[in-house]
Amino acid sequence: MKNAYTELAAHMKDIKLLGTAMSIIGWDMRTVMPSEGAAQRTEQLALLSKVAHDWMISDKTKSLLESVHELEDLNNVQLRNLELWQRDFDLSTKLPSEFVRKFEKQRRTTETLWIKARPKNDYKMVQPELQKLFELLQKKASYLDPLKHPYDVLIDLYEKNATQKDIDSYFGPLKTGIMDVMHKCLQSSVKPNPNILKIHANVEFQKRFSDLLWKLMGMSSDRSNLFEAAHPFTTGYAKDVRITTHYHEDDPIKANMFSLIHEAGHALYELNLPEEHWWTPVGSSISMGIHESQSRFPENILCKSREFLTYIYPHLQEILTGYKEIPLENFILAVNIVNPSLIRIYADEVTYSLHVILRYEIERDLFNDKTTITELPHVWNQKMRDILGIEVPDNKDGVLQDTHWYQGLHGYFPSYALGNIYDGNLLYAMEKEVPNWKEEIANGNLMPAMSWMKENVHRHGSMYDPIDLIEKVTGEKPNSKYFVQYLNEKFSKIYKF
Amino acid sequence: MKNAYTELAAHMKDIKLLGTAMSIIGWDMRTVMPSEGAAQRTEQLALLSKVAHDWMISDKTKSLLESVHELEDLNNVQLRNLELWQRDFDLSTKLPSEFVRKFEKQRRTTETLWIKARPKNDYKMVQPELQKLFELLQKKASYLDPLKHPYDVLIDLYEKNATQKDIDSYFGPLKTGIMDVMHKCLQSSVKPNPNILKIHANVEFQKRFSDLLWKLMGMSSDRSNLFEAAHPFTTGYAKDVRITTHYHEDDPIKANMFSLIHEAGHALYELNLPEEHWWTPVGSSISMGIHESQSRFPENILCKSREFLTYIYPHLQEILTGYKEIPLENFILAVNIVNPSLIRIYADEVTYSLHVILRYEIERDLFNDKTTITELPHVWNQKMRDILGIEVPDNKDGVLQDTHWYQGLHGYFPSYALGNIYDGNLLYAMEKEVPNWKEEIANGNLMPAMSWMKENVHRHGSMYDPIDLIEKVTGEKPNSKYFVQYLNEKFSKIYKF
Repeated sequence: MKNAYTELAAHMKDIKLLGTAMSIIGWDMRTVMPSEGAAQRTEQLALLSKVAHDWMISDKTKSLLESVHELEDLNNVQLRNLELWQRDFDLSTKLPSEFVRKFEKQRRTTETLWIKARPKNDYKMVQPELQKLFELLQKKASYLDPLKHPYDVLIDLYEKNATQKDIDSYFGPLKTGIMDVMHKCLQSSVKPNPNILKIHANVEFQKRFSDLLWKLMGMSSDRSNLFEAAHPFTTGYAKDVRITTHYHEDDPIKANMFSLIHEAGHALYELNLPEEHWWTPVGSSISMGIHESQSRFPENILCKSREFLTYIYPHLQEILTGYKEIPLENFILAVNIVNPSLIRIYADEVTYSLHVILRYEIERDLFNDKTTITELPHVWNQKMRDILGIEVPDNKDGVLQDTHWYQGLHGYFPSYALGNIYDGNLLYAMEKEVPNWKEEIANGNLMPAMSWMKENVHRHGSMYDPIDLIEKVTGEKPNSKYFVQYLNEKFSKIYKF
Repeated sequence: MKNAYTELAAHMKDIKLLGTAMSIIGWDMRTVMPSEGAAQRTEQLALLSKVAHDWMISDKTKSLLESVHELEDLNNVQLRNLELWQRDFDLSTKLPSEFVRKFEKQRRTTETLWIKARPKNDYKMVQPELQKLFELLQKKASYLDPLKHPYDVLIDLYEKNATQKDIDSYFGPLKTGIMDVMHKCLQSSVKPNPNILKIHANVEFQKRFSDLLWKLMGMSSDRSNLFEAAHPFTTGYAKDVRITTHYHEDDPIKANMFSLIHEAGHALYELNLPEEHWWTPVGSSISMGIHESQSRFPENILCKSREFLTYIYPHLQEILTGYKEIPLENFILAVNIVNPSLIRIYADEVTYSLHVILRYEIERDLFNDKTTITELPHVWNQKMRDILGIEVPDNKDGVLQDTHWYQGLHGYFPSYALGNIYDGNLLYAMEKEVPNWKEEIANGNLMPAMSWMKENVHRHGSMYDPIDLIEKVTGEKPNSKYFVQYLNEKFSKIYKF
């Protein structure tokens, strides 16, 4: 009887192999593909994706799952795999194929319209289609689980077993805490000058600096590579996980340096998954929120620290000589400027979560009938004023800013800030076990901190749901107080409050 | 009823889409993949390959083919597609799957052993396995067509409808003609010095020179790209056809320049296939021999001509300054040196075909019981003496030189020299229609010659079998006298005979 498990695992591995083949093809499309190749590439991906879906929803999957459920001697890992395979099967089979077609069509229509509407600042242009998409999303949620609140069903797609109730309990204090730090920074007499970061630096030299960061992050060229992409991303699995960066000749720090570190953080999570469980769910990453915690940890907590910046700056100046005249202190201030701004993806370490909370609150209110698609621009602008103290000049940089809603990805946004909250808990736990992590960083050694993450987060793969994982590792459920406390300690020194 | 054709075309397109997805993944493996990715990549490729094979041999293919054979109103292109689809189906279904497994296993065993035996100079080490593979090849041929001579069956796999009889009639006079040219060159008082080509040139500069060649060849960056690979190759289809080159710091001419032009020739054939028939056989290349004619044409006939070398040399000197002191005449002589040597892939334009003829004669004799696997080293060395006048010092650079036989690719070799013969016919025909092609080349304009190939060869795709294609385009069946005549005219000037 034990054979049924092995057979199911082999079948599911085939599906995952197809997925990783698609990753490579998708990587190729976004990095090196000749532009005209796009149309045939889309056809290849659609075909592979159909094959993978057909395999997943097949009678074979169904009957193997049934057989494995009857086995009595499964160990904990096998039970967990079974649970997650069953979940994948359910997610793929609960939606009627007619509905999936309709939903995908509506997504494409809405996104295509958004691409046109954004440069025109014209929310009204896309509003009717967004309304339809929103209605289909509610339908999708009710197909997946008619007994749960629709927004909880959607959140669960990205952050397993997290609910509005959980998120409210994290984001409430997070919002208050961050707004407090932000206001203290803005009231401070310390005024960083972010423009000093913008020097002209040839791509060739920036690449040399990238090599240095690559090594410091502990990336291995045997299992990864670094290419350019317009929108940096990480993709791959097991022994082939790739990162990308972009080079702007006038912005080596934000565009390349911290983007590269962020993506390397994502990659290391994938590369450090437990090899003995590869190609099964337990050998895979668990959630968007945990993934984001692993990218934001080296990007912000490690590499924007005074210790790391002090270590790296002479090397940076050596390679990008344009920084030679700029004092270290000014550099540290500029990298850590707190500056409420319009665009989420350009936001600083402190205000970033506020952008996410704003989106979360709007999504939550939408799914609880407290606002409507029609009111979105108004609500957006009001919240930007209330939370970040910013006037939104136009919808282009307001409600039309991100692609997520126009692709029907409601429920995705919270994970960006959950990553920060998890980081707070993890940092607090790590400091107890690796008390010298900062001294090591001051010597350019990121490994003690990164290895702790490997042992405590990466190696668990999907064994635990995100919130349970944090509790298991840190002894406590996620609590935003730790992240707020970290921000207070760090920024009170920088901004002298 | 017409729907059956459309349905079959769609089904076959899916199989071809899988094939092109595998091309991209294969390209990735040989250019940019982190080394540790190899194992999982092999699994991905094996899986995709199995899916494509399953689809090809499915009842669906069988019944669609049957339905389409019953249609009465197919046009010529559709009839040709049907013929070639049927051929693919037959090739995939005539071999019992038990045999395919056995054959593939024997191939792998033999190749693996060859990899070890070659550096050890030890033919005996691989001989028993090669014997078994040879016997399986005969069996393979009898499965595919028990009524035809086994070697003809194998040749047909690479050069459709070409037979030993055809090839004998081409290779006989080709051998005599080329040996005559070779001897005249060797007896000449003109003594080119090939060592002058070996200057040290940084890869960065070589890449700049590559860009120039890329443009001169009419390659489009919207539909192709250029990366490095240890063994240059071309892959892709339709709007995404990629070439590769390699850079040796001490050999910019052979390693990069002519390799790049050769691969660009292959790529342009693929890129210029008739778009209206893409994803069907008629919209695909017809044979290895025609493909080789399209790579060797720009590599040798166009770009090793006095006219082109005279045009390009100042640009080359400008970029690779190491050539500044070397006079043009010496450069032209060195590029066109005739120098019988041990290794086929390093052979010059004149003697190259002799290496191929040697292999063809041995294969032919093997399949006609005129020699044996045991005698191969002896036969090889004797033929090297008789044809190229060279003593073979060891099996490593003799009978163990090429991978083909140890992979069971018997029947493949002839296509390399067929390409040259086809080029002779094509050149003769082109000169009548594009009389100014050489003057244009003298101005760096390869387009008149390349466009003629596009119109007369590429755009026919697989509409005609190779020999028929040459006859249709040139009015004559392939005849090696044209290639020999071309060599005589060119090399009598260079070597002053």
